[in-house]
Amino acid sequence: MDLTALRTANPEHWNKAAAIRALTLDAVAAANSGHSGMPIGMADVATVLFEKHLKFDVKAPKWADRDRFILSAGHGSMLIYSLLYLMGDEQVTLDQIKNFRQMGALTAGHPENFLIDAVETTTGPLGQGIANAVGFAMAEEMQRAHYGKKVVDHNTYVIAGDGCLMEGISQEAIGIAGRQKLGKLIVLWDNNNITIDGSVELSDRTNQIQRFKASGWHVQEIDGHDPEAIDAAITAAKKAQKPSMIACKTHIALGHAAQDTSKGHGALTDAEQLKAAKEAYGAPLGAFEVPADVKAQWEAIGTRGAADRAAWEARFAELSKQKQERFNRAYALEAPKKLSAAIKALKKQISEEQPKVATRKSSEMALAVINPLMPETVGGSADLTGSNNTKTGDLGVFDTDNRKGRYVYWGIREHGMAAAMNGMTLHGGMRPYGGTFFCFTDYARPSMRLAALMKTPTVFVMTHDSIGVGEDGPTHQPVEHLAICRATPNTYVFRPADTVEAAEAWEIAVTAKETPSVMVLTRQNLPTVRTEHKLSNLTEKGAYVLSEAEGKRQVILIATGSEVSLAMEAKAKLEAEGIGTRVVSMPCMELFAQQDEAYRRKVLPAGPVRVGIEAAVRAGGWDRWLLGERGQEKKAAFVGMDRFGASAPADELFEKFGITAEATVAKAKELLG
Amino acid sequence: MDLTALRTANPEHWNKAAAIRALTLDAVAAANSGHSGMPIGMADVATVLFEKHLKFDVKAPKWADRDRFILSAGHGSMLIYSLLYLMGDEQVTLDQIKNFRQMGALTAGHPENFLIDAVETTTGPLGQGIANAVGFAMAEEMQRAHYGKKVVDHNTYVIAGDGCLMEGISQEAIGIAGRQKLGKLIVLWDNNNITIDGSVELSDRTNQIQRFKASGWHVQEIDGHDPEAIDAAITAAKKAQKPSMIACKTHIALGHAAQDTSKGHGALTDAEQLKAAKEAYGAPLGAFEVPADVKAQWEAIGTRGAADRAAWEARFAELSKQKQERFNRAYALEAPKKLSAAIKALKKQISEEQPKVATRKSSEMALAVINPLMPETVGGSADLTGSNNTKTGDLGVFDTDNRKGRYVYWGIREHGMAAAMNGMTLHGGMRPYGGTFFCFTDYARPSMRLAALMKTPTVFVMTHDSIGVGEDGPTHQPVEHLAICRATPNTYVFRPADTVEAAEAWEIAVTAKETPSVMVLTRQNLPTVRTEHKLSNLTEKGAYVLSEAEGKRQVILIATGSEVSLAMEAKAKLEAEGIGTRVVSMPCMELFAQQDEAYRRKVLPAGPVRVGIEAAVRAGGWDRWLLGERGQEKKAAFVGMDRFGASAPADELFEKFGITAEATVAKAKELLG
Repeated sequence: MDLTALRTANPEHWNKAAAIRALTLDAVAAANSGHSGMPIGMADVATVLFEKHLKFDVKAPKWADRDRFILSAGHGSMLIYSLLYLMGDEQVTLDQIKNFRQMGALTAGHPENFLIDAVETTTGPLGQGIANAVGFAMAEEMQRAHYGKKVVDHNTYVIAGDGCLMEGISQEAIGIAGRQKLGKLIVLWDNNNITIDGSVELSDRTNQIQRFKASGWHVQEIDGHDPEAIDAAITAAKKAQKPSMIACKTHIALGHAAQDTSKGHGALTDAEQLKAAKEAYGAPLGAFEVPADVKAQWEAIGTRGAADRAAWEARFAELSKQKQERFNRAYALEAPKKLSAAIKALKKQISEEQPKVATRKSSEMALAVINPLMPETVGGSADLTGSNNTKTGDLGVFDTDNRKGRYVYWGIREHGMAAAMNGMTLHGGMRPYGGTFFCFTDYARPSMRLAALMKTPTVFVMTHDSIGVGEDGPTHQPVEHLAICRATPNTYVFRPADTVEAAEAWEIAVTAKETPSVMVLTRQNLPTVRTEHKLSNLTEKGAYVLSEAEGKRQVILIATGSEVSLAMEAKAKLEAEGIGTRVVSMPCMELFAQQDEAYRRKVLPAGPVRVGIEAAVRAGGWDRWLLGERGQEKKAAFVGMDRFGASAPADELFEKFGITAEATVAKAKELLG
Repeated sequence: MDLTALRTANPEHWNKAAAIRALTLDAVAAANSGHSGMPIGMADVATVLFEKHLKFDVKAPKWADRDRFILSAGHGSMLIYSLLYLMGDEQVTLDQIKNFRQMGALTAGHPENFLIDAVETTTGPLGQGIANAVGFAMAEEMQRAHYGKKVVDHNTYVIAGDGCLMEGISQEAIGIAGRQKLGKLIVLWDNNNITIDGSVELSDRTNQIQRFKASGWHVQEIDGHDPEAIDAAITAAKKAQKPSMIACKTHIALGHAAQDTSKGHGALTDAEQLKAAKEAYGAPLGAFEVPADVKAQWEAIGTRGAADRAAWEARFAELSKQKQERFNRAYALEAPKKLSAAIKALKKQISEEQPKVATRKSSEMALAVINPLMPETVGGSADLTGSNNTKTGDLGVFDTDNRKGRYVYWGIREHGMAAAMNGMTLHGGMRPYGGTFFCFTDYARPSMRLAALMKTPTVFVMTHDSIGVGEDGPTHQPVEHLAICRATPNTYVFRPADTVEAAEAWEIAVTAKETPSVMVLTRQNLPTVRTEHKLSNLTEKGAYVLSEAEGKRQVILIATGSEVSLAMEAKAKLEAEGIGTRVVSMPCMELFAQQDEAYRRKVLPAGPVRVGIEAAVRAGGWDRWLLGERGQEKKAAFVGMDRFGASAPADELFEKFGITAEATVAKAKELLG
């Protein structure tokens, strides 16, 4: 392709974009890996966006009212790294660009929110960014409704590729955004017609324009290399009262020998071709060289928002002290002072009243205490509101005519919900939680993993947590899902035994700053096992002695959730036979593993035989507590599931699969010999 | 709603549909759980479909050329159970209907393919059925191209609900079907505007007509209670050269007090309301009563296809013996006789040549042997063909102008690919395998679980299986995914150490009849560790002694995949210090667990210290082999990952995270004291 026409039409624009292109080529060549084509193809769009539209101050990348920029096509990470370096970001120095994808560098293969402040969200798994962005835009609507337009008024921009749009999660995101008329969400689609396997037509002929329109979006089509068209389209998108999609027709790896090919998607490292491309761009041939005037122009762009920010700070100072405090507290992910006492009061009440309720109901009781104290919480469910017990009375429903609503009807979109919740958390100032059936953790899984990786304390409310689901059968009965969640680093998996533990778990979840929580809750009613009020949060220890042996301690029963009361039953039977039995409740294995060895030994002393009880597979972390930590193979057994469930009333299923007090007693006695 | 007009317009149709409605109400009431609204709402559509269109012989539910009927909205299971009972299915007796959702009944809460022959696929997790159906329809196209229209010529019908269409997977399915112009796929959308949380508008305003059209579908809108309109629409859909979607406007729980409400979605058990609904239907008031003439009409429908089937059998007999044998062998999931010898020959060659290749390449080498011998294999990738090494030379690409092609470019749709592959397997006569990065197991997870539950031997080819991915960083580096796959019942998780093990794993995978396989493969090159040719398939044992201790056996190193060669290095170092070290390769924990205790003890005798090595979390099943099975806590250690990875060259990452021969040696020596 002859770039002359493009270069001469608007040289100043061209040179700025060329700097992105050249840096991308150099960084990928130095790393000998990466993705050159997308940053090169989208350099014009990004240049116009950053130069003319994005509200941003490179010196204050976390300024609350900045526009958000999300690179959903995260493999094109050199686009954002180039932009940040050119604008003078303090983290993304030239040295970082030179060390692209190297050990310890901030400039990782895919942009990581926990490495660079200006990176709003970790992207790479395709489609996540566009779905995160829906949460960002919803958070903005909610906060604007609450604090007013003077304090909250920003756009969310997304660059998405064909991969993002092919992934199913994008349809969930498009559907939510269209339904909620998220007018400040603007998606720039890198319409380059290339995927890794070849042209998009190999696998898809969807008319994306029609698809977005079908879900109520404002749609435009432009030449993604025409700066004026880009500018005009973004201007129009900002005015639209709907979410906007701008289809930017681009050439992947523009001006390189690999232009318009799937090869252009990857690492373009050939030295001759690199040189030829740089010549076509009119860029300096030296590696990582940027003409001083171009760098200066970019730096001016980087601080273009400084005045806006100063003005915003003045407006923020005009808010009431209370609102300022609330705003700052929520952005700092701090809990309100009253929370701790309120949770204690609930625990005391429950220990006295000893209700027999499902832990999904327990969770609702905790939320009824938390939500009024924490206006930053946002509840929701993937179309199981009545089953997940996620909606407390005071929340109001988030809708086009009620942006103050704090409850979201996500629809049957577990994945989109999870990703959007991550987006809300990352936006700042919000603590979202959302529910589905625990089995459908499967659908939300890619975003649950990213919550853990990104250190976002999103809360996943997962009810119907075992064969206790009953008649709905094995498609709806989790058996391996505790194992899945527990195997994931940086994730709290709470399986409370009753309302007291549920309240304690929620307290931990809504005060966590870097760790997502999974609340694993029953459908079926359970007795209160914490009948003695304790001020301290025992769930924080992960596991604790719920009930000490009466006689000589011969058995330790370790259980979670619905199986704790079963352990108590088994203990009663064992004690009746003179077998001293301790019951350990273990609501959170991760937190127990974090305790010091002395505490762990106190809870699980060597000597007694151990029986673990959980209506799930043993692979869910049990062997460490049964065999390890000074347990022994010949002195440990497990009562749980080793296959998929079945469709029948819940009580019958517990019998069928041998998860009963009787089976527990029998195993303990067998171990005692 | 006054049903008089509907009843009188076509009483014969009405009464047949009314029988479905009445049976649904009775069965749900008896079970006191279930979903009444959908079968009631879609009874008219189903009646017309079964009476006038579906090619089906109730006496031979597995007849290969039957039309496939898939209830994607699986919660409406009473629709299919009613139909089967009414038509005289031998499994779904009146007794089964009366025992809906009870222990041991075939009539489970959601339809399960492994319980009832006429149930094509297990549904319930929403969106799966419509995506399975894409695989069914592709399988039909492939087989029609191969065997001719006289032997293969059937439609795939799907009933899908709003939930199916909101789930992201549906867009992946719609995109694939549209691209491939699957003209024999017909989706009947139960457009009732109701979800569990309320009206669809609460969460979605997508114009489904436009969305399907955007992906190239033939679309019609009809009154789903008008039998003539239904008939005409299905007739038109069958003629269309594109996949068809018929939007059937229906009333959920038609004629019941809960009609058109979200309450109508669930279990309608109120006796008075049930009676009133039956009266409105003109159905007998006695529970489970069906008028004799109506039952007779349904039974006639059930055997309507008998003549077609007889004619088909005659045509099938005209096929060449070779084609008949191939057809029957593939449907029986039998391997060709030559396979075993060919795998052995490859193993021998590899043991001699000892190539140093990535196991993704090893996998391709095995496929290059298997694919020519097994024309029923269908390869593919979710847009990572070159990285997953799934395309062998002879396959040809499946496309609108090449239905004989055996390779599918699935696009960036891991979930849709996995579900469609399950559909192909369930269709019969096919053995699909498809690839993505192991980390994106997350996206495919709901369908991978269903493969295990449904006992479909689909093969998931998962490359780039650890921090060995290198620079792409933690979003692309699996650490918990082995744990996830291994925690799932009925799943073989293979992590071969070299090409010999890869060939053995593939042999097991493509001869499995009831168990899906996950091939976990490296990006990076590995040496051949199986340098001595063995005729027997050692991987079939799950784990085996790869290298015996030279001196007194003090250490057992247990490793999988890329860490087996690392274990061999560590062994060499230990032996050099006079420490006798056995290396156990463990390519498949599930198969090892299935061996008898004597074999397991032989491989892992008590006494020596044990070090497990795997570039993944210890929670992936390791404690059983390290601490259990007569191991001991003080004598076992693990070399692996305990956090997410990072972006850097792979070699540096193995160093950084301490997954090295040196670290292994140090741990072993520490254990020896």
